[in-house]
Amino acid sequence: MDYDSIFRAAIDRLHEEGRYRVFIDILRTKGNYPNAQCFAGHNGPKPITVWCSNDYLSMGQHPTVVEAMERALHEVGAGAGGTRNISGNTHYHIELEAELAGLHGKEAGLVFTSGYISNEATLSTLGKLLPGCVIFSDELNHASMIAGIKNSGCEKRVFRHNDLEHLEELLAAEDPETPKLIAFESVYSMDGDIAPIVEICDLADKYGALTYLDEVHAVGMYGAQGGGISERDGVADRLTLIEGTLGKAFGVMGGYITASKTIVDCIRSYAPGFIFTTSLSPVLVAGALASVRHLKASSVERDAQQAKAALLKAKFTEFGLPVMPSVTHIVPLLVGCPVKAKRISDILLAEYGLYVQPINFPTVPRGTERLRFTPGPSHTAEMMDELTSALIEIWDRLELKLAA
Amino acid sequence: MDYDSIFRAAIDRLHEEGRYRVFIDILRTKGNYPNAQCFAGHNGPKPITVWCSNDYLSMGQHPTVVEAMERALHEVGAGAGGTRNISGNTHYHIELEAELAGLHGKEAGLVFTSGYISNEATLSTLGKLLPGCVIFSDELNHASMIAGIKNSGCEKRVFRHNDLEHLEELLAAEDPETPKLIAFESVYSMDGDIAPIVEICDLADKYGALTYLDEVHAVGMYGAQGGGISERDGVADRLTLIEGTLGKAFGVMGGYITASKTIVDCIRSYAPGFIFTTSLSPVLVAGALASVRHLKASSVERDAQQAKAALLKAKFTEFGLPVMPSVTHIVPLLVGCPVKAKRISDILLAEYGLYVQPINFPTVPRGTERLRFTPGPSHTAEMMDELTSALIEIWDRLELKLAA
Repeated sequence: MDYDSIFRAAIDRLHEEGRYRVFIDILRTKGNYPNAQCFAGHNGPKPITVWCSNDYLSMGQHPTVVEAMERALHEVGAGAGGTRNISGNTHYHIELEAELAGLHGKEAGLVFTSGYISNEATLSTLGKLLPGCVIFSDELNHASMIAGIKNSGCEKRVFRHNDLEHLEELLAAEDPETPKLIAFESVYSMDGDIAPIVEICDLADKYGALTYLDEVHAVGMYGAQGGGISERDGVADRLTLIEGTLGKAFGVMGGYITASKTIVDCIRSYAPGFIFTTSLSPVLVAGALASVRHLKASSVERDAQQAKAALLKAKFTEFGLPVMPSVTHIVPLLVGCPVKAKRISDILLAEYGLYVQPINFPTVPRGTERLRFTPGPSHTAEMMDELTSALIEIWDRLELKLAA
Repeated sequence: MDYDSIFRAAIDRLHEEGRYRVFIDILRTKGNYPNAQCFAGHNGPKPITVWCSNDYLSMGQHPTVVEAMERALHEVGAGAGGTRNISGNTHYHIELEAELAGLHGKEAGLVFTSGYISNEATLSTLGKLLPGCVIFSDELNHASMIAGIKNSGCEKRVFRHNDLEHLEELLAAEDPETPKLIAFESVYSMDGDIAPIVEICDLADKYGALTYLDEVHAVGMYGAQGGGISERDGVADRLTLIEGTLGKAFGVMGGYITASKTIVDCIRSYAPGFIFTTSLSPVLVAGALASVRHLKASSVERDAQQAKAALLKAKFTEFGLPVMPSVTHIVPLLVGCPVKAKRISDILLAEYGLYVQPINFPTVPRGTERLRFTPGPSHTAEMMDELTSALIEIWDRLELKLAA
């Protein structure tokens, strides 16, 4: 059996499709973000500007977060040393879960090692606990939600993206006695659009469905306390579960869910992806706790981010760059070809020291390949001018189309 | 639809079976491990001794590890800020992967956010890349391997624990042209026994199978450089993949695989659990790197751990406590009843300030419920005497059987 040729063929397919991924070897410089150092393909490190980080509010370098992590590191050490059940539970975990529950107005919270595993473990376990459950899933849901739904073994009905009519049609087609769960996101991270949460909750009520909302690209950034779009829209109490991440706007790492005490207890007790894994390092938990508390009290970072995103969109639009419609902090630029998206990204990095990753299939549908910019509080107007000029030059060089 | 009663019934089942898990709220004290503080159910924190941590070598409080994490925290900040592909790749990750590849004598390494996800993502992806693959799985494999095999969609053949004849019987029954993968562990963490790795590799050669070895309870602790049982037995080069963790003997958090460049490239490029998740915090990566390098050079911790494990086994045996046969650092004490295992653990913590978690189903088969002790370099002979006396008193109080 020639295993090696099978594996090599799998890699060749990626090269042929122009979507083989090369990881850029960088080191950010704390206190100086979005500036960073790039190591690969140069003689020695080279300074770059990062335009594609999900550390949306630069909380990963916030003194409050860094100090909290340093304190925990010295008080309890590096790792948790066990699963939550076997010596890996710390007082930090309990405090953070209470804080997150409060953030979303829920009875309880549960922390996971990542947002990916929080979606996978929770959705798969919910589905297994509800006999005959049918899960209704937005077609643009994240890979981790898709994995969780698949692993639940439930029947799945995919509704067209943010399409209420289609969702209702699918809900109405099921037996009223069938358990139902609607799984969706608030901010879709590759397009920057927002789900009609209130209307989806209305449909959930009408058809007796539970709701699962992924707020990973919204927590910390929307709502008066950073509780996400569900806080902003005053609808948090109508959602059965709200899921979030500690690794994007909160700047650290890890994922979580919040819900009723009973549901959280079920996930805690039945989800293999929660039970059988070393718990999140207390150093990270302490940092996340400081970050969540800071962003509950401060709107400075949120306001600055919105202003910077609006400014970058305005500059792109002014010069005819094909910015995709986005009502959030995410600024996607359509390219529509994986090879060209990668080429633009390569030129930006090599010639301009500007780092933005091409977004290709399977992260986005084929034909919608793009560059995705995430301006934050630390990106200046001058940086935006530099970026816009570089893009216009490259658009011209590669004979890409600008708007009139 | 009364969802709440369904969820409450799921929790009630756990209570009825005596296996509802209560997380002990503790804070370890760096520099002072295995001493810690316990918060729950007391008036204020109470000092305890931890007997069930998987921070096997106390590397979570090692000055080299703590200093490396502190440096990274100040140099680059709290989190990675993105997936490995989108701004979350750092120079630390690349260095750690090279170090881990070297540790196991493999061409390449790949770091995941946890050992759980490294098993789940790798096994599920390997299975999907090999059309028609049949996976042979030891019956005591960890939940994360079972999840990966299930999610691969492959046919699975479960062989009796460490049973070479049964494995060969199952291998021989398949078509020689069928792709095959044997997935097993080196040290089984709940019993402390070791797989016959050489003989399994012989069978793999004879029947043309790939091999996947989980060394999470062995890396750092066995082999001259801490490369695990496969290093100790001189068989690392015969294994297709070696998987390990950064969260047990290395004292930090995260998981990894090592293998050929092509296979690592395939997992890197195809595994959703690797691709779609914020990468491991550079703070943790820096700590793990320091820990791996330290344990490559130093055998002091390994030797001390083996000596302490032998001493505790000797003490338990001397007083007739039912220590289960273990050829490793793991010291399990058979109880055989979930309610009694929990009762012993509760008394130890409440009355003696000794913390060891009961291990119940589904972590171990029903009827083999146990207490599992993990003595390490920092546990003293006096602590062991205190523990043994306490156990004898409780065994007597609960009218449990001692050996003659």
